[in-house]
Amino acid sequence: MVNLEQYHKVRNQTLLLCEHLSSEDCQLQSMPDASPAKWHLAHTTWFFEAFLLNELPGYRPFSLDFQYLFNSYYNSLGERHPRHQRGLLSRPNLTEILQYRSHVDAAIADYTERKIAINFQLLELGLHHEQQHQELLLTDIKHALSCNPLYPKYAPPVDGASPGVMPHQWLKMEAGLFEFGSAGGSFCFDNETPLHRGYLHNFAIANRSVTNEEYLQFIQDGGYQRPELWLSDGWYVKESQQWQAPMYWIANDTGWESFTLHGRLPINPHEPVCHISYYEADAYARWAGGRLPTEFEWEHAARSGVHAGNFLESGQYHPAVQVMHNFFGDIWEWTSSAYSAYPGYQPLPGAVGEYNGKFMCNQFVLRGGSCLTPSSHIRPTYRNFFHPDKRWQMTGIRLVKNL
Amino acid sequence: MVNLEQYHKVRNQTLLLCEHLSSEDCQLQSMPDASPAKWHLAHTTWFFEAFLLNELPGYRPFSLDFQYLFNSYYNSLGERHPRHQRGLLSRPNLTEILQYRSHVDAAIADYTERKIAINFQLLELGLHHEQQHQELLLTDIKHALSCNPLYPKYAPPVDGASPGVMPHQWLKMEAGLFEFGSAGGSFCFDNETPLHRGYLHNFAIANRSVTNEEYLQFIQDGGYQRPELWLSDGWYVKESQQWQAPMYWIANDTGWESFTLHGRLPINPHEPVCHISYYEADAYARWAGGRLPTEFEWEHAARSGVHAGNFLESGQYHPAVQVMHNFFGDIWEWTSSAYSAYPGYQPLPGAVGEYNGKFMCNQFVLRGGSCLTPSSHIRPTYRNFFHPDKRWQMTGIRLVKNL
Amino acid sequence: MVNLEQYHKVRNQTLLLCEHLSSEDCQLQSMPDASPAKWHLAHTTWFFEAFLLNELPGYRPFSLDFQYLFNSYYNSLGERHPRHQRGLLSRPNLTEILQYRSHVDAAIADYTERKIAINFQLLELGLHHEQQHQELLLTDIKHALSCNPLYPKYAPPVDGASPGVMPHQWLKMEAGLFEFGSAGGSFCFDNETPLHRGYLHNFAIANRSVTNEEYLQFIQDGGYQRPELWLSDGWYVKESQQWQAPMYWIANDTGWESFTLHGRLPINPHEPVCHISYYEADAYARWAGGRLPTEFEWEHAARSGVHAGNFLESGQYHPAVQVMHNFFGDIWEWTSSAYSAYPGYQPLPGAVGEYNGKFMCNQFVLRGGSCLTPSSHIRPTYRNFFHPDKRWQMTGIRLVKNL
Amino acid sequence: MVNLEQYHKVRNQTLLLCEHLSSEDCQLQSMPDASPAKWHLAHTTWFFEAFLLNELPGYRPFSLDFQYLFNSYYNSLGERHPRHQRGLLSRPNLTEILQYRSHVDAAIADYTERKIAINFQLLELGLHHEQQHQELLLTDIKHALSCNPLYPKYAPPVDGASPGVMPHQWLKMEAGLFEFGSAGGSFCFDNETPLHRGYLHNFAIANRSVTNEEYLQFIQDGGYQRPELWLSDGWYVKESQQWQAPMYWIANDTGWESFTLHGRLPINPHEPVCHISYYEADAYARWAGGRLPTEFEWEHAARSGVHAGNFLESGQYHPAVQVMHNFFGDIWEWTSSAYSAYPGYQPLPGAVGEYNGKFMCNQFVLRGGSCLTPSSHIRPTYRNFFHPDKRWQMTGIRLVKNL
Repeated sequence: MVNLEQYHKVRNQTLLLCEHLSSEDCQLQSMPDASPAKWHLAHTTWFFEAFLLNELPGYRPFSLDFQYLFNSYYNSLGERHPRHQRGLLSRPNLTEILQYRSHVDAAIADYTERKIAINFQLLELGLHHEQQHQELLLTDIKHALSCNPLYPKYAPPVDGASPGVMPHQWLKMEAGLFEFGSAGGSFCFDNETPLHRGYLHNFAIANRSVTNEEYLQFIQDGGYQRPELWLSDGWYVKESQQWQAPMYWIANDTGWESFTLHGRLPINPHEPVCHISYYEADAYARWAGGRLPTEFEWEHAARSGVHAGNFLESGQYHPAVQVMHNFFGDIWEWTSSAYSAYPGYQPLPGAVGEYNGKFMCNQFVLRGGSCLTPSSHIRPTYRNFFHPDKRWQMTGIRLVKNL
Repeated sequence: MVNLEQYHKVRNQTLLLCEHLSSEDCQLQSMPDASPAKWHLAHTTWFFEAFLLNELPGYRPFSLDFQYLFNSYYNSLGERHPRHQRGLLSRPNLTEILQYRSHVDAAIADYTERKIAINFQLLELGLHHEQQHQELLLTDIKHALSCNPLYPKYAPPVDGASPGVMPHQWLKMEAGLFEFGSAGGSFCFDNETPLHRGYLHNFAIANRSVTNEEYLQFIQDGGYQRPELWLSDGWYVKESQQWQAPMYWIANDTGWESFTLHGRLPINPHEPVCHISYYEADAYARWAGGRLPTEFEWEHAARSGVHAGNFLESGQYHPAVQVMHNFFGDIWEWTSSAYSAYPGYQPLPGAVGEYNGKFMCNQFVLRGGSCLTPSSHIRPTYRNFFHPDKRWQMTGIRLVKNL
Repeated sequence: MVNLEQYHKVRNQTLLLCEHLSSEDCQLQSMPDASPAKWHLAHTTWFFEAFLLNELPGYRPFSLDFQYLFNSYYNSLGERHPRHQRGLLSRPNLTEILQYRSHVDAAIADYTERKIAINFQLLELGLHHEQQHQELLLTDIKHALSCNPLYPKYAPPVDGASPGVMPHQWLKMEAGLFEFGSAGGSFCFDNETPLHRGYLHNFAIANRSVTNEEYLQFIQDGGYQRPELWLSDGWYVKESQQWQAPMYWIANDTGWESFTLHGRLPINPHEPVCHISYYEADAYARWAGGRLPTEFEWEHAARSGVHAGNFLESGQYHPAVQVMHNFFGDIWEWTSSAYSAYPGYQPLPGAVGEYNGKFMCNQFVLRGGSCLTPSSHIRPTYRNFFHPDKRWQMTGIRLVKNL
Repeated sequence: MVNLEQYHKVRNQTLLLCEHLSSEDCQLQSMPDASPAKWHLAHTTWFFEAFLLNELPGYRPFSLDFQYLFNSYYNSLGERHPRHQRGLLSRPNLTEILQYRSHVDAAIADYTERKIAINFQLLELGLHHEQQHQELLLTDIKHALSCNPLYPKYAPPVDGASPGVMPHQWLKMEAGLFEFGSAGGSFCFDNETPLHRGYLHNFAIANRSVTNEEYLQFIQDGGYQRPELWLSDGWYVKESQQWQAPMYWIANDTGWESFTLHGRLPINPHEPVCHISYYEADAYARWAGGRLPTEFEWEHAARSGVHAGNFLESGQYHPAVQVMHNFFGDIWEWTSSAYSAYPGYQPLPGAVGEYNGKFMCNQFVLRGGSCLTPSSHIRPTYRNFFHPDKRWQMTGIRLVKNL
């Protein structure tokens, strides 16, 4: 069960991420998919207020306006401010949002200390929710800063010699009837339940994700010009968006650089390729003679992996070169599984039931967490999901092949 | 193996469908998703020419221009005329297209009679391809005629007393490891292969599809105004398209009529509801306390059903009241399965490999065939697929529930 | 005053123009700005029915549906079929539309012979209206056929040696207070009234319009790449539409051809340049060190010109090389005058008041008529008008300069 | 000739306007037509640097990046940051922009004191340019704040009893040949030149602009539902934008309020109506039996008026009730004149030639200045211009009628 110390630790991490940002930076919304850092600060706070504190005796909300302004998508909780206009809320200002955070944190502490029954399940959900927004805050500010022709840095670069990458190997997996999803005992989202059976055929999975060097071969082999490698919808998107390379890659005279949260940097050939869409991941896999794993293949293989990799806490906000057989951190890995309900799935009751279930359409499951994911937030059964054309998340590729 | 008689029978069916249409009708393209009847006549002919005849010694193409004009989406066969501009091809005119059909039919007959090796697999594929386009020709002309405020009839209505509908029952299915997909021995598309194992949990499936009367209760209960019933993407589409009822339904003073290929008719409460999107099917199921079947649940249940229902050959181009436990005809049934590759799936080699595989993204599987499907075209393993917002096909609902 | 013989002559001209077209050709609508030939045939007929015959005792309309289907933009006469869906009306078919024409022609003849008072002003307006649609029918079918990759011909080319073009000369005009607009005595549209005074400064006007050869020099001098030559709105349109040359020009290995109503033909350097937008005309004039005339400068100069040039009746549906000092025929000439009301302007009373007045915004005046204009339709005071980005009309350039 | 004191006075006024704004407010860009306050602060400074200081010996630019970032639309001065992304420039921050202003102000002062030849014509142009941006800064922040559902105030309201409005009267004007444009002797923009002759017919002009009360009668008489009152383009825009009233009007239970720079306030019936498009002004005039003046009629009448009205300096950022026969201040008045070149017009040489001339298309002239215009900025020959669908400026109506 989560305790107050853990609560403050997670809440404080969000503030730490904003120390690199001015109030003007925190105001930016560069596309409808992204939100201002200020909005993330407020919305994560709103979550505790709307789902927990408003139910408690004697709680006085910080502001009735905020109930409307900082609801993201919970229809059951009433009308909302339009998503694409979040960047127009100069008022309340950043100072007021920080006061809002303090107000809610104090209330949580107060009720806890007074031993008034808090719904600890929702408190824990709120902290995992906040961790999800820590990652989004970073991917969103990265997108916003990338729109500035000065290419400003979010944070100073992390030095260190770049190690050599592991050689690629195939890990063989035997067919069989296995169990998938959360077995309970620790926190999970409702979309990881129930534990259920499924059958896997023989397959082999790569020991690491695809590198920039490998992806460059795909580009140089005309990968972006060969329709036979692409899904029909993917080819259409690629053509209309004029993709030539992963998002944030910038052509220079001699090759490619990329924009990172540490500024404009040369491409490191040994790092995992990231910021690619499902369509690119799928085309790459076809070109390479493999395919993407199903989420069940991934989960089955990952259960035997170590929980290592580059996570949010390192301060290196960019994927690192992989040096051991791990399935976690650095980049989210696209699976070929459309995001859908497990057999017997039931959403949580009430408004939090809108958290996951209503998105089970047109998205693909990603697994494993990234360099922007808090280390304590990820697990083998964790299901992330995005539309297949999205590229602003830290998304990459791990290959499988049939046996 | 397909023979020449079958070839002529299928080819002739397409011409029969056009007997209700003038050359001006055959010119219409009312949206990018639909094609003119004239284009369907030409494209199905092109298929035999492009994949079969062009490979044969001594074959002289009817027109080199047609190779370009009537390719649908085969990138491997070169550039194509833009899809949304098919309705602008007044030339070649209908007479020339019919001559094109005769030319190709004569060539097929000639080679067959001269016993020059034809690829009979591709010939059979071409006939199934043509049957698919027979259905599309009807759904497309229905859409085009619906844009005419005079609501013209495609064909005269079919008289007959409307029987009462069967009472709804649940058919129980036991959990287990089963086989899915085509076992070979007769024609199937590549997306039905390979035969493979999968695990099903306990479930129950309805003995018939949802009726207009049942769907009207959903409407009257505010189904189109309650976001908690809808997928997030679905609610957005519904709002922006301002859906209030199935496609082709027209509000009148006392209730609803609908536009059919037999003109504007009252809603028959006992007929299966049709022309609904995946989003509406999913919302209805949630409202009704059930869910949509997976394609595997559907296939497993349908293997025990009879091959009955209303098909294209009846001349009643509208779903009929269901009077027995059957899974075929009348309406395509949305499943909750995203269209994707079976384990070990391999597309056909060459350009026909583009037939199915490149669409395995963002679409949902439909099963069972409709009143516009030729009877000989459907089977339990058949996988149709459309994007979840599409409504111009004959699409409806069969419910399942967990046990 | 117009008589029955003139009526039949104009009406018959429209039918003659359709003799080159099949019923499928007549169905085409290739953009919202354009209408199907069938619709032009019906709408011009509707005009006589709606404004004249419906007022007469004992007249029986051909079809009540047509009142709705073939209204173009007269709000006062009720609801209308959406403009962009005119191409979806396969029914009524062409035969029925021709019957509609005969019905209305017979009624007009009958009332005239029975000496029942017809509103002859409206009859004359109806004939000028029909002549306008003769030109539109041709520009619209040209656009539709241009969308066909086979580049079909509308009519066979007209042979004949191409003469040399006149050398360019400036005609000097003295400043003064002059009268503009129609002085009455013969037909004019309401927008040519009232006769009114205006002051002109000294200027000089070219003796002929700009040729393809001259326009090619603008292209070769980087005219399409130099923003300083363009209006701000024009540059934006040019960039987003990717214009590189006049509409219908097609680059080949050695230079340019163009698509014409006589098929794909080489550019004749001596012919007037046509199918250019106001923005291109304005940019060319700036590049050439001149400017476009105001409509008053044009009218003043044209009053002294001869009524010669290539008109509709010649059967050469393309501008001809200019061989004398004339201001009429071949191409419409863009003026720098925004289309607006003359001082004291009053629209006609009733629904025909919507003919001109409500378009006096965002359009520019064109003068002089084109090779698609009936010869009897044009006069020095005639004001045509189009939005500045439109190119599918026969539009070109005549230069003026300050003195 | 402008002097240093005047320079500092104008420059300081811009800073005063920003005292009501936080750095977050200054970041907002709520639509492509509008710019952030921070951008206005920088761009007006850039103008002095780009056109004046960069030419002077020894000047060191504050930042080379700013040359690119803060160019608005001068193609001759190189590439520019995309207009619609001005709101994404969190860096440079507000403090740096203020330093940029100080740097440029110090340089201007320094060169002046050292009597190094400054181009005083460009300095004066720069100050008038800055005054234009003072008005835009306010209209743009008004739009941005209006997107905040909290309806925040820009500045505290100005108290004071509201006087009664003058009765409406017609001022008669005689026909004749008159001179228009600037006669020289004091500052004007190039678009006010050259002085030239033009002929006016008899007309009468209203002694004041149309009030809210009068405009409400138009609304209540179905003005927004009667197409016969509207230009065709205007009706289309109104329908697609769903206009029911002037911009910023908010329906409440008993009638209308409006959002102002002083917050949400009741409609004062006697104040001039403002925030209406050209289309609404034109429809109102038609409904009222009058018309809009040409810019020449307006200029002729205004030469005899007093230079009074509510201007920027009052601190009342809203139109005031008109209490005398004046033509200036409170609201810009739409004229029926399309914005175009005067006979013999020549743009200024060099990049400043892009200031006005390239916008002479698709816009209408407005005259008289508004409550947001600095008093010293307006004069009878001043030509403002906007596209006819724009409503975020302080735009209203003065009627004329024919005699």
